[in-house]
Amino acid sequence: LPEKQLIRLIRRQASTRRTAAGVIATGIGDDSAVLRLPSNHEVVVTTDFSLEGTHFRREWHPPRAVGHRCLARGLSDIAAMGGTPLAAFLSLGLPARIPQTWVNDFLRGLLELARKFRVSLAGGDIAQSSVGVLADIVVLGTVPAGRAILRSGAKPGDGIHVTGALGASAATLARLRSQSRARIVPSRHPAHFFPEPRIVVGQFLSKKRLASAMIDVSDGLSTDLAHICEESGVGAVVYGDLIPLGAPAARGLSASPTVRADSATRASALNFALHGGEDYELLFTAPASARVPPRIAGVPITRIGEITRAKKMWLIGAGGRRQWLVSGGWEHFANPGRNKGSR
Amino acid sequence: LPEKQLIRLIRRQASTRRTAAGVIATGIGDDSAVLRLPSNHEVVVTTDFSLEGTHFRREWHPPRAVGHRCLARGLSDIAAMGGTPLAAFLSLGLPARIPQTWVNDFLRGLLELARKFRVSLAGGDIAQSSVGVLADIVVLGTVPAGRAILRSGAKPGDGIHVTGALGASAATLARLRSQSRARIVPSRHPAHFFPEPRIVVGQFLSKKRLASAMIDVSDGLSTDLAHICEESGVGAVVYGDLIPLGAPAARGLSASPTVRADSATRASALNFALHGGEDYELLFTAPASARVPPRIAGVPITRIGEITRAKKMWLIGAGGRRQWLVSGGWEHFANPGRNKGSR
Repeated sequence: LPEKQLIRLIRRQASTRRTAAGVIATGIGDDSAVLRLPSNHEVVVTTDFSLEGTHFRREWHPPRAVGHRCLARGLSDIAAMGGTPLAAFLSLGLPARIPQTWVNDFLRGLLELARKFRVSLAGGDIAQSSVGVLADIVVLGTVPAGRAILRSGAKPGDGIHVTGALGASAATLARLRSQSRARIVPSRHPAHFFPEPRIVVGQFLSKKRLASAMIDVSDGLSTDLAHICEESGVGAVVYGDLIPLGAPAARGLSASPTVRADSATRASALNFALHGGEDYELLFTAPASARVPPRIAGVPITRIGEITRAKKMWLIGAGGRRQWLVSGGWEHFANPGRNKGSR
Repeated sequence: LPEKQLIRLIRRQASTRRTAAGVIATGIGDDSAVLRLPSNHEVVVTTDFSLEGTHFRREWHPPRAVGHRCLARGLSDIAAMGGTPLAAFLSLGLPARIPQTWVNDFLRGLLELARKFRVSLAGGDIAQSSVGVLADIVVLGTVPAGRAILRSGAKPGDGIHVTGALGASAATLARLRSQSRARIVPSRHPAHFFPEPRIVVGQFLSKKRLASAMIDVSDGLSTDLAHICEESGVGAVVYGDLIPLGAPAARGLSASPTVRADSATRASALNFALHGGEDYELLFTAPASARVPPRIAGVPITRIGEITRAKKMWLIGAGGRRQWLVSGGWEHFANPGRNKGSR
């Protein structure tokens, strides 16, 4: 495989340059990349695997989408801290006989997203993989000292908010697993194939000090809310009716009540929203007194519940029916499509 | 697989703490790790794959050695910049049925080395791998602003120096590939199983401003010297007789001339030293006027040649015979054992 060629391609857009959050002093072509940060900032670092067979399938996901999703996973983690991404590092394991066009399109998808958020691809590693495509993305960002939004800051009485809509990605994945996958056009299912990391929303929440705790919804709402509850030592009540549903079957349901759907469809869309994962929306808590705008950077923000002192998670259903909300995405080994695993 | 258990294990030694080079504000258990750097420092970042079948074999390498080597690869890249390692991030892909003891011993090897260099394991990712053990290590370090030693600073007339001895790791690998592998005791082949990253030497060279260019010898002397020449726009002359040989067959050859070895053994040891790889020694250039000590932090430093204006690499043999030095480790896809691939 043309390793040198790949390095040259990546190199062309790395080298010394100014990015959104700092300066890449030296990029690809040395033992390590050297990064300069703005003063009085901290570094936020995240690392995420994208493994063929676990996180994507070459027969389902076009290479541009695989590249996009690979970087989006990392950017979303930076967004969840309220950080500004600075540089990405890509470790890529490639089968010896992979078509060059696949690699080119994968990189194109990744670099398009990198350019959009002014992230420099500053290094990485390449190796032959005897098994399939393995990508590990590291994203390094910055945040003003002391201003990172952690998972551990939620307090009883805080509102629970979510960006955008949930469940569309998992609904698409379910269709990919079904017989009707041939009719799926990736560009019509952006939530799954080209998720948009909520960088600007995260930055806004950090700057305005609105959020007490934050996480990105990658393992599913029920699992990621549990992470906040666990780290903060609190519980939660979530109102099923308030959850913005993104699943295609339910599109328009929450936004426009004139569109009707039968309750089975709605239940299925709610299920995807609660337990589906790979939404890459932000889930955050904010004190009841905080003025959380209804939209941030064009993205709708929805209040879906509140934090409680009792360390349980409850889901309030349509008729006020109350049931335990049990994390559905955690055991990703039993359910490969849902894995995020980043801690 | 007990993902939670693994996270707990890793977490126990991460969390908020002071390390050699900065402060881990928040470690594992959030979307990203948050790191605080000393003021007026830059960040150095490196990422390295360790893939089963490519970089190690479970039947050859005990898990403790795999863990040690995984982190050593990254630390060695930080050493090659003159940096001080701060934090490591481990992305780990594990087969569903891997024995827990293998994972424990892998982590033990990695964490023992981390502790030795006061590096905090500050995050990572875990996923199921359908194929074998995949580890991607990211190491983040610091260096005073402007003091990173790059590959691109070598000037004609500079001396070429190397730490320790070369070739022992490749010689062991050759034995692992042969019929006599059963008799190999890992602890007796530390250069291969437990290489020592030259962090302190790198820091010394940066602090004293002795080195004009530096790289770690991971792909083999001929390849890594070529990287320095390429990045610096220069050539090199290397004296075969001066290269410190570490191959077991030639042990003592250069240090003690009273030990004799036949020329075939010596040629084979020289071959391992020139083209073998995975030595994790430092190769650096220094102006002729620089006073490079014969030992740094107990590690012998040997001058093996000099940088030339002509952009060729020459090897001067025993009788003054001059031959082109051709990179032997680059095309790692043709020769899996040699891959480093980090740029």
